[in-house]
Amino acid sequence: MKVAVFPGSFDPITLGHLDIIERSIPLFDEIIVAVGFNSIKQSGLFPIDDRIEQIQAATKHLKGVLVKSYEGLTIDFCKKNNATTIIRGLRNTVDFEFEKSIAQMNKNLQPDLETIFLFTDPKLAAINSSIVRDIIRNGGNANQFLPFEL
Amino acid sequence: MKVAVFPGSFDPITLGHLDIIERSIPLFDEIIVAVGFNSIKQSGLFPIDDRIEQIQAATKHLKGVLVKSYEGLTIDFCKKNNATTIIRGLRNTVDFEFEKSIAQMNKNLQPDLETIFLFTDPKLAAINSSIVRDIIRNGGNANQFLPFEL
Amino acid sequence: MKVAVFPGSFDPITLGHLDIIERSIPLFDEIIVAVGFNSIKQSGLFPIDDRIEQIQAATKHLKGVLVKSYEGLTIDFCKKNNATTIIRGLRNTVDFEFEKSIAQMNKNLQPDLETIFLFTDPKLAAINSSIVRDIIRNGGNANQFLPFEL
Amino acid sequence: MKVAVFPGSFDPITLGHLDIIERSIPLFDEIIVAVGFNSIKQSGLFPIDDRIEQIQAATKHLKGVLVKSYEGLTIDFCKKNNATTIIRGLRNTVDFEFEKSIAQMNKNLQPDLETIFLFTDPKLAAINSSIVRDIIRNGGNANQFLPFEL
Amino acid sequence: MKVAVFPGSFDPITLGHLDIIERSIPLFDEIIVAVGFNSIKQSGLFPIDDRIEQIQAATKHLKGVLVKSYEGLTIDFCKKNNATTIIRGLRNTVDFEFEKSIAQMNKNLQPDLETIFLFTDPKLAAINSSIVRDIIRNGGNANQFLPFEL
Amino acid sequence: MKVAVFPGSFDPITLGHLDIIERSIPLFDEIIVAVGFNSIKQSGLFPIDDRIEQIQAATKHLKGVLVKSYEGLTIDFCKKNNATTIIRGLRNTVDFEFEKSIAQMNKNLQPDLETIFLFTDPKLAAINSSIVRDIIRNGGNANQFLPFEL
Repeated sequence: MKVAVFPGSFDPITLGHLDIIERSIPLFDEIIVAVGFNSIKQSGLFPIDDRIEQIQAATKHLKGVLVKSYEGLTIDFCKKNNATTIIRGLRNTVDFEFEKSIAQMNKNLQPDLETIFLFTDPKLAAINSSIVRDIIRNGGNANQFLPFEL
Repeated sequence: MKVAVFPGSFDPITLGHLDIIERSIPLFDEIIVAVGFNSIKQSGLFPIDDRIEQIQAATKHLKGVLVKSYEGLTIDFCKKNNATTIIRGLRNTVDFEFEKSIAQMNKNLQPDLETIFLFTDPKLAAINSSIVRDIIRNGGNANQFLPFEL
Repeated sequence: MKVAVFPGSFDPITLGHLDIIERSIPLFDEIIVAVGFNSIKQSGLFPIDDRIEQIQAATKHLKGVLVKSYEGLTIDFCKKNNATTIIRGLRNTVDFEFEKSIAQMNKNLQPDLETIFLFTDPKLAAINSSIVRDIIRNGGNANQFLPFEL
Repeated sequence: MKVAVFPGSFDPITLGHLDIIERSIPLFDEIIVAVGFNSIKQSGLFPIDDRIEQIQAATKHLKGVLVKSYEGLTIDFCKKNNATTIIRGLRNTVDFEFEKSIAQMNKNLQPDLETIFLFTDPKLAAINSSIVRDIIRNGGNANQFLPFEL
Repeated sequence: MKVAVFPGSFDPITLGHLDIIERSIPLFDEIIVAVGFNSIKQSGLFPIDDRIEQIQAATKHLKGVLVKSYEGLTIDFCKKNNATTIIRGLRNTVDFEFEKSIAQMNKNLQPDLETIFLFTDPKLAAINSSIVRDIIRNGGNANQFLPFEL
Repeated sequence: MKVAVFPGSFDPITLGHLDIIERSIPLFDEIIVAVGFNSIKQSGLFPIDDRIEQIQAATKHLKGVLVKSYEGLTIDFCKKNNATTIIRGLRNTVDFEFEKSIAQMNKNLQPDLETIFLFTDPKLAAINSSIVRDIIRNGGNANQFLPFEL
C-alpha cells in the first residue's frame, strides 16, 4: 500500500491545499493530511482541533484521505505511518528555496523517504494562510479562499 | 479625480519610499501615503505619530500628497478614500513573490482596485527599513538612507 | 493627455497581454500597443502585419487603444509619440530580473520616462508566447490562450 | 497500470537525470524516458539514436524503465502511451519558473495529466547538459557528470 | 596583513559554515569568525559561550582562524579588528537578496570594506541552522550536519 | 603570488565590469581579465581585438591588471596562468543560478580552484552587455554605461 503524507500547519486549510490533496489522490492508496503542532509554543489562529475538523469537512468527499495531527519531526511521523512519500505544493520561488532545504535535510535523515512536489494551481497560488489569517483578524471575508464557511 | 494609496509601515520612511512617491505623482491627482498600524499588537521602532510627521516633513515639497494612518485591511482603506489604485515599490525577487500574493488576493477581494508597481531606484533598493532600524538600534548613523535627520 | 506605450513582440498577442491592456486603460488617456520589429533580422512565427491585425481585432472593443509597429529603441518610440509611461506585465521572477534591467537602463537614457508594472493575472501568467508558438508549430490547439481564433 | 513520462532532450543524459529516474521508480509501474526531437530543426551534440543508446545503457539495471523518442507535443505523446503523469526534476529557481509555465499550460490543454516534481540531488543539481556539452566541445573530461564513459 | 571577518549567529555552526571558512583561508592571513549577539534580546538555542566553544573545536585544525563574539554593527567590529573584507556564504536566491541588501548598505556606510561571497558546497547548502535547531528541539539526531557531536 | 582570473566575453566591457575589477584589486597580486572566444563560432558585436583594446584602455590606470584572450575551458586557462581564484560579479537571481552551476562544475573539475563573487554596484547592476549591444545596434548612445567612448 502506497501511503503519502501531506504535512502542514493548515491554519486554516485553504483551497490551495485542497487542490494539492485532490490532485495527489490518483498517485497513492492513502494520503494522510498531517497537522503539525507544538504543545509548548502554541500559536496560530485556529486551535488544532478546529483545523482537523475543517480539513475533515473539506475532504469528506474524497476516498483514501485521513487527517491526523502530530508533534515532532515529520520524518518520524512518516515512519510511524509507513509513508514513503511526502507531498508538498510549490507556489513561488521563496517556497521553492525553503522546500528544497527541508526536502534535502529530510532525504539525508531518511534516505528512503521521497518528497514530491506539485505546482499549486495558479488561480489558487496567491492564497497564503498567513494573509488569510490577516483578513480574518481584520474582520474581512476570506470565504472565497477557503473550502469551508467561517 | 484619480486617487492612489501607497500603503506601508514606514518605520521609518526611507529615501527608497520617497523615490516611489515622487515618481508616482505624474500618474495621479492625489497620493495618500497610508501608514498601517495595529492598535492591539503595537510594535516597531517609531510611534505612528512620529512616522506620520517624518513622512509629512519629507513630502511637504510635493503637491497632491496626503499622509494618513489606518488600521485594518488596505482594501477597506482604499474604498473609504475612493482610491482606485494601490502603488507599491519592488526591490527584489523576495519582495516580488510577497507582493504578487498580496496584489492577487486584493484583486480577488476587490476586483476594481488595481495595484501598480515601480522598481525602486537601484541606488536606493538596498535600503530596507528593517536594516535601517538595526543600524539605529545599534547606535549607527542611518541618515544617508533617510529623507530626514535623526 | 496621458499617453502610455505597451511594447512587445506580440508573436502572437495572448490573453495575458490583453488582460494587461484592459487593466491599464483607467490610468491613461491613450495606450499604444507597440509591436517591435527588426527589419534586418526578421524572425518570429507571425508576420508583423498579422500581429497588428490580431491585436486590433482583440482590442477593438476598447476605447483609447492604438496599435503601431516600431523599429529601434523603445525610448525613441515613446518620445516620438509623447508617451510618458511604459507599461509592462510581470509574470515571474525571471521576467522580473530582465524587466528590472531594461527599466533601469531606459530610466538612465530617458529620466522622465517612467515604467510601471502590473502583475499578470495568475490564471493567465503561465501563458508564454514562446510556448504558444511551440504548440502552434506542433499542430496543437492554442486557442484557449489567445484572444482570437487560429 | 500507472505510467509516467520523463521527457527531455537528454543531450546527453547526466547523473542528475538518472537520479530522478531512479527515485521515481517506486511511484510508478512504468517510466518512459522520452527523448524529444524536432526532425526539421535538428540540433544538439549527440544524434537522437546515440542519446537513446546512452539512456538505455544507463538504465538497463532498472526495472520498468522504457526509452522512446518522440516528436511533437509532450501531452500528445503521454496520451498515446496512456501516461497520467509527467515527471520533472527541479534544480533551481530559473528551472522553477520555466517548468511552472509548461506544467500549467499542459494542465490547461490536458486537465487529467498531472506533472510532479522532484528536487534534483544537490550534489548533482549543478550538472547542466548545456555546460556538459561545452566541456565536451572544448575537449574537457565530462565523465564525472555522466552515467556512461565518453 | 589581510584580515577578513566571517560574521553570523552560528547557532550552531554547521558543516556549511565550516566549508566556507576552510575555502576562504588561502585568500587571507587571518579570518575572524565573529559571533554576533544582542545582550538585551537574548535568544537562540545555544548560549554564546557554547557557540564559541563549538566553533573553536571545529576550527582548531585550521591556521589563522580566530573566534570572537561581538555586539553592535558588523562594520564597527570590522573596523576595530582592521578587517577589510567580510566573507559570506550564499546558498540560494533568498539568501542572495538578503545578502545583497546588507552588503550594499555596509558598502554605503563603510566604502572601503568589501564583501565577498562563496557559494556553499551544494551537498551542504541545504543545511540551515534554523532547521538544525528544529531537529535538535524535536529530539532528532542532527550530528550529520554539524562539525561536532551533540 | 596570488593570481585571479576575471573571465567573460566583455562584448563590450561595461562600467559594471570595471567596478568588479577595481574592487578585486586589493585581494590579489595580479588580476587577468580573460576574454573568452570561440574561433569556430565567431559571434558578437565587437571583434576580440577591439574588446581587448577597450579593456586595456579602461584599466590602464590600474596596477596588476593584465588582459588576455583565451579559447577553451576557463579552468584550463586558469591552470596555465597559475591562477587559484576566479572572480565573478553577481547582479541578480538569474545570474546567481547560472553562476552557481558553473562554479560548482568548475569546482568538481578542478577542486583547488575557488570562485569568489562580488555583488555588482546597484547603480551599475542593470548594465547588461546584451542590452548595451542592442542600444548600439539601434543607433542609441550607450556611452554612459561604458568606460570608453564610442
